[in-house]
Amino acid sequence: MQSFADFAVKLNKMEKLTIVKVGGKIVEEPQSLKQLLSDFSKIDGYKVLVHGGGRSATAMAAKLGIESKMVNGRRITDEEMLKVVTMVYGGLVNKQIVAGLQAINVNALGLTGADMNYMRSEKRPVTDIDYGFVGDVKEVNADILSDLISKGIVPVLAPLTHDKAGSLLNTNADTIAGEAAKALAKYFDVVLVYCFEKKGVLLNENDDESVIANLTAELFEQYVAEGIIQGGMIPKLENSFEALNAGVKQVVITRADLIHTEVGTRIVL
Amino acid sequence: MQSFADFAVKLNKMEKLTIVKVGGKIVEEPQSLKQLLSDFSKIDGYKVLVHGGGRSATAMAAKLGIESKMVNGRRITDEEMLKVVTMVYGGLVNKQIVAGLQAINVNALGLTGADMNYMRSEKRPVTDIDYGFVGDVKEVNADILSDLISKGIVPVLAPLTHDKAGSLLNTNADTIAGEAAKALAKYFDVVLVYCFEKKGVLLNENDDESVIANLTAELFEQYVAEGIIQGGMIPKLENSFEALNAGVKQVVITRADLIHTEVGTRIVL
Repeated sequence: MQSFADFAVKLNKMEKLTIVKVGGKIVEEPQSLKQLLSDFSKIDGYKVLVHGGGRSATAMAAKLGIESKMVNGRRITDEEMLKVVTMVYGGLVNKQIVAGLQAINVNALGLTGADMNYMRSEKRPVTDIDYGFVGDVKEVNADILSDLISKGIVPVLAPLTHDKAGSLLNTNADTIAGEAAKALAKYFDVVLVYCFEKKGVLLNENDDESVIANLTAELFEQYVAEGIIQGGMIPKLENSFEALNAGVKQVVITRADLIHTEVGTRIVL
Repeated sequence: MQSFADFAVKLNKMEKLTIVKVGGKIVEEPQSLKQLLSDFSKIDGYKVLVHGGGRSATAMAAKLGIESKMVNGRRITDEEMLKVVTMVYGGLVNKQIVAGLQAINVNALGLTGADMNYMRSEKRPVTDIDYGFVGDVKEVNADILSDLISKGIVPVLAPLTHDKAGSLLNTNADTIAGEAAKALAKYFDVVLVYCFEKKGVLLNENDDESVIANLTAELFEQYVAEGIIQGGMIPKLENSFEALNAGVKQVVITRADLIHTEVGTRIVL
């Protein structure tokens, strides 16, 4: 059963909110960061930026003599590495982005999940692998966040959550973007933009121009069956459909330099 | 001439806001930090926490092979050191405090001056000494801050500002606390609490119990003339009177473990 509040929200025409997730590489080099922030500032209406920072964390850990342990491409976050990612994601990368956006009149606010308790997670249970201080998202408190967005504030989300028991936890930036998008879909017509090294999902992996403009669930199944979409793109797209099923209006996969354009693959139900 | 808005604000009975400034040492050790956050949480009503972090920054710089340059006890912030303080103040120290407060149900939000552009500064002009990336505060935008405080959010302010041209700047935590207090005095009855190693300003420096309970401007002048108040305490108290003259209701100088009590030196006009 729907609450009256849910019903009332649905009666109103909701405003558009664009949530852009960019990987570490782009935000970690001053020149590409500057270009990205300029492109991001050109997106009309309400917006949120979600960033990574893995390369900087690895480099900082190395400088401090801390070994970066990876299993299947995923970082193992021990106590020392948690301090590094807290410094690098929550401090260095996040605050440089915020200062860079303020310089071009985007009223940015940097956040980790601990800030205003906007995203609570639980330490991932140890199975075959102990990922250490890595958080699986359990709860998103989007009320104050949506209120700030409505006032023109642009949240800049670092890939860190917390357990509400005093510990910060390392959380994948794609996950942060997806969970924020789902929670904010109650208040806005959310468009979730994932940046990628190509212009979008390709029909032919050898032709960078063969971008699939619109991808429905039906087409997705067909392309997977035909072997056109394969490998790491499959879970990425499955996550996108999950976001759409949870109320997000549209997911776009595009290249970082195209976030302010209409180019890319649009994923719709 | 007063604006109507100023007049309207003054007609309303304003609510109390306590701004506590703690130095680095207390927030940099897990045990003393935990105790401080517990004491801070016991302060009734609206509150703000301002923290330092100099010792951690110096230690982190040393680990990274960066030399900490000091002139007259003040840090010279070159480009490499700016990165260190951004990581340590804005990331490590700030976010650990925020996560620690959330664990005891204080709805904390960590901020640098760049966040929501709440505190803009200008790089200190080079005279005899080039302090590097150090900011002198020029503008405090307390509107959104006071709005968040009214909603129960507890800002946790790191000693960093920005120039609104893309650069973060290192700014003394005492200054951050004083400037925030003055700007928020328009919206709240502000009590500014500076933590100190003694229980308050002492009548007799050899007797830790000889705390001056109430210090007026008149008494201050008398004690300075008599040599009872001397040295580094004089500029500290001059700053306190400046804050009072700018609308802050009361300044308290006390020991960190007494912030939630009525003990300490109360400075009033």
